[in-house]
Amino acid sequence: MKQMKTALEFNITQRMPGTLARAGVIKTPHGDIETPAFIVGGTKATVKALTPEQVTDLGGQSILANTYHLMLRPGADIVKAAGGLGKFMNYSGPTFTDSGGFQVFSLGVAYKKGIDAVAHTEKGDASQATKSAEQLVKITEKGAHFRSHLDGQKLLMTPESSMELQHAIGADIHMAFDECPAPLAPPYYLIEAVDRTHAWAERCLARHQELNTEHAKVNEPLQALYGVVQGARDEKLRRGSATFLGKRDFDGYGLGGVFEPGEIPTVVKWMNETLPEGKPRHLLGMGSQPADLFLGVEYGVDTFDCVAPTRQARNGALYTYDGRINITNVKYKADFTPIDAECDCYTCQGYTKAYLNHLFKSDEILASTLASIHNERFVVRTVDLIRESLKDGSFYDYKKQFLTRYYGDTLPAGVTLG
Amino acid sequence: MKQMKTALEFNITQRMPGTLARAGVIKTPHGDIETPAFIVGGTKATVKALTPEQVTDLGGQSILANTYHLMLRPGADIVKAAGGLGKFMNYSGPTFTDSGGFQVFSLGVAYKKGIDAVAHTEKGDASQATKSAEQLVKITEKGAHFRSHLDGQKLLMTPESSMELQHAIGADIHMAFDECPAPLAPPYYLIEAVDRTHAWAERCLARHQELNTEHAKVNEPLQALYGVVQGARDEKLRRGSATFLGKRDFDGYGLGGVFEPGEIPTVVKWMNETLPEGKPRHLLGMGSQPADLFLGVEYGVDTFDCVAPTRQARNGALYTYDGRINITNVKYKADFTPIDAECDCYTCQGYTKAYLNHLFKSDEILASTLASIHNERFVVRTVDLIRESLKDGSFYDYKKQFLTRYYGDTLPAGVTLG
Repeated sequence: MKQMKTALEFNITQRMPGTLARAGVIKTPHGDIETPAFIVGGTKATVKALTPEQVTDLGGQSILANTYHLMLRPGADIVKAAGGLGKFMNYSGPTFTDSGGFQVFSLGVAYKKGIDAVAHTEKGDASQATKSAEQLVKITEKGAHFRSHLDGQKLLMTPESSMELQHAIGADIHMAFDECPAPLAPPYYLIEAVDRTHAWAERCLARHQELNTEHAKVNEPLQALYGVVQGARDEKLRRGSATFLGKRDFDGYGLGGVFEPGEIPTVVKWMNETLPEGKPRHLLGMGSQPADLFLGVEYGVDTFDCVAPTRQARNGALYTYDGRINITNVKYKADFTPIDAECDCYTCQGYTKAYLNHLFKSDEILASTLASIHNERFVVRTVDLIRESLKDGSFYDYKKQFLTRYYGDTLPAGVTLG
Repeated sequence: MKQMKTALEFNITQRMPGTLARAGVIKTPHGDIETPAFIVGGTKATVKALTPEQVTDLGGQSILANTYHLMLRPGADIVKAAGGLGKFMNYSGPTFTDSGGFQVFSLGVAYKKGIDAVAHTEKGDASQATKSAEQLVKITEKGAHFRSHLDGQKLLMTPESSMELQHAIGADIHMAFDECPAPLAPPYYLIEAVDRTHAWAERCLARHQELNTEHAKVNEPLQALYGVVQGARDEKLRRGSATFLGKRDFDGYGLGGVFEPGEIPTVVKWMNETLPEGKPRHLLGMGSQPADLFLGVEYGVDTFDCVAPTRQARNGALYTYDGRINITNVKYKADFTPIDAECDCYTCQGYTKAYLNHLFKSDEILASTLASIHNERFVVRTVDLIRESLKDGSFYDYKKQFLTRYYGDTLPAGVTLG
């Protein structure tokens, strides 16, 4: 582990003129992350179906685990006693944890209704967007009162306890505990939620700095904290939140509450135009489709995370440069070509669609492993190539060629090729 | 692939005086197998939860797949079109297929009753040992009439079709199609089943030789065929079967219908004393516990196969030199030591019991992978060390030390340390 005087260093090495896009390097005590980068989802201290070596081999530079899930099982004390997240899961690279804030949303107002019902105008219902009859979370100024989704046990997560849990888990980069309101919630509620997120952010920062002081005393590496910007689809709230948090001594920023690629040219732009330019920005929980990645980088995102590539892989939905395919389709039964002939992943180098079709039809575990390697590599590589395109000035050509081929004539709403 | 003039060569390099034990090398077109060896179970053209590289890394020298399962899904024609079993599953080492004969037993008389009910004197019922109300197999001289366990489709497997399927699947070593009778079946039925197995063996050999002649014409490597010896627990039948098959031009022999380690010093001894010494012998479907392996080698077995190590691994039952443990036990929640400190496997080198306990409790796929690597390595390594002990004369010391430690005072019935 490198001894660093600060928790994190970020150096921008390249900018794309006239845009918010940049390339750079995030330095952590467990190594560097070349940005833009896709951070691999490792929710419960494991990237589902993959060994850490498989994650590294597919180009993964870093893993993001989830504080709420690890708090419930095995418990942050166990992860701490193991020597921290990296040692526990046998991964030596840089690690992130999210704060538990997204679970305030998914187990709260979105519980059993799904995200669409509270996030998407056409499908949603604003009257449902502040509370849910069955929700497992109640929010007060103090924090979020949870019921464990595992055993119903009552739990309270506060900004302070989130920091204590994240320091026990010991990832390199932590997220402040925030409230992610439903985008369809009424304006009064969005203002209230942003104010609460700001108050919580200051409490997080204070507790985090105390915990870092304790690390410094015993010569342990410092840990980094990102403030999380909220504000739904309201420009004033988003810019206000970025201004408020931008003035505080965070090491970087999480961009929360963005749900669709079409929001990136507005919501993400508002935040990244306002945040201090020299600090890294992480788009929380987004990156399951190429439009997220291209628009995210274009509008100033440095890192992404999303569990969709492995979740979709386990369902047999595989990414190709010509769009997504379902490998369980009978038409692949005797198709002895790789998932994508242009893919350089382990799976595409050694296995055919026919074999994957067989593994999925037979409910074999190796199906999940091979499919996850492929999808994860597809996303990681796409971001890596976007990074290269920033350096050689070919970003817009690459974006146009990639998105045209992937989506055909059906670009996601709000996404343009320009 | 090596061009060989014969389908298989077997060279005995070492014998243990006064016993049937020997060490040697089986040469196949896809490489050598140092014997005694544990052949890794790859039933449906995949070693469950493992990549082929993980199989090789844990010391696996060869894989055994199952003709009945591959016939149903994806179909032998698909495996053939893929270039054969090895190419289909991306495994470059030597491969075996079994004949489908064991499914005559498991989907026949043992169907829905389990093996115990028709194999074990104390637990079994001889009146149940020739047929079952629900069985999916009917046996005639022609062959075995199956109903697919997947979709109920009617199928007929004959000695000839088993050979055609195995040549299409294209493993290096095939097994003759046999009938494995329930050990508790009455004497008249055992005689009938052995006679049928012999008649089928001759038909298998004839069809196999025709198919090999076709391979030779187009310069394809020859494939090897093992005759399968049956005869339950009857010395006269076992020796008679070994004599009958021993005179035929098989490349080696499968030892079928052995269910417990306590049978090895009798049943396996009778067969191996009678079979031609210079041909390899494979103990079919046994090797889930150390007593199987030590007694098997002592009584002249060259190769073993068994799916139990990976099946038990997926259930959290992990092998240690001090016996089997259940990793889901709460006592391992904060145990930061490896599964077995003396194990050299990938899992024990990088992961703790606490982490495995967490993965199992969280239903994570990586649990199956890490546990399977460990159990499979444990068995492969045990056989490898038995092979070394034959070479340096320490076999009995190693056997006594290993079995005493593993079983404590409760050796399996019929197993002695001498």
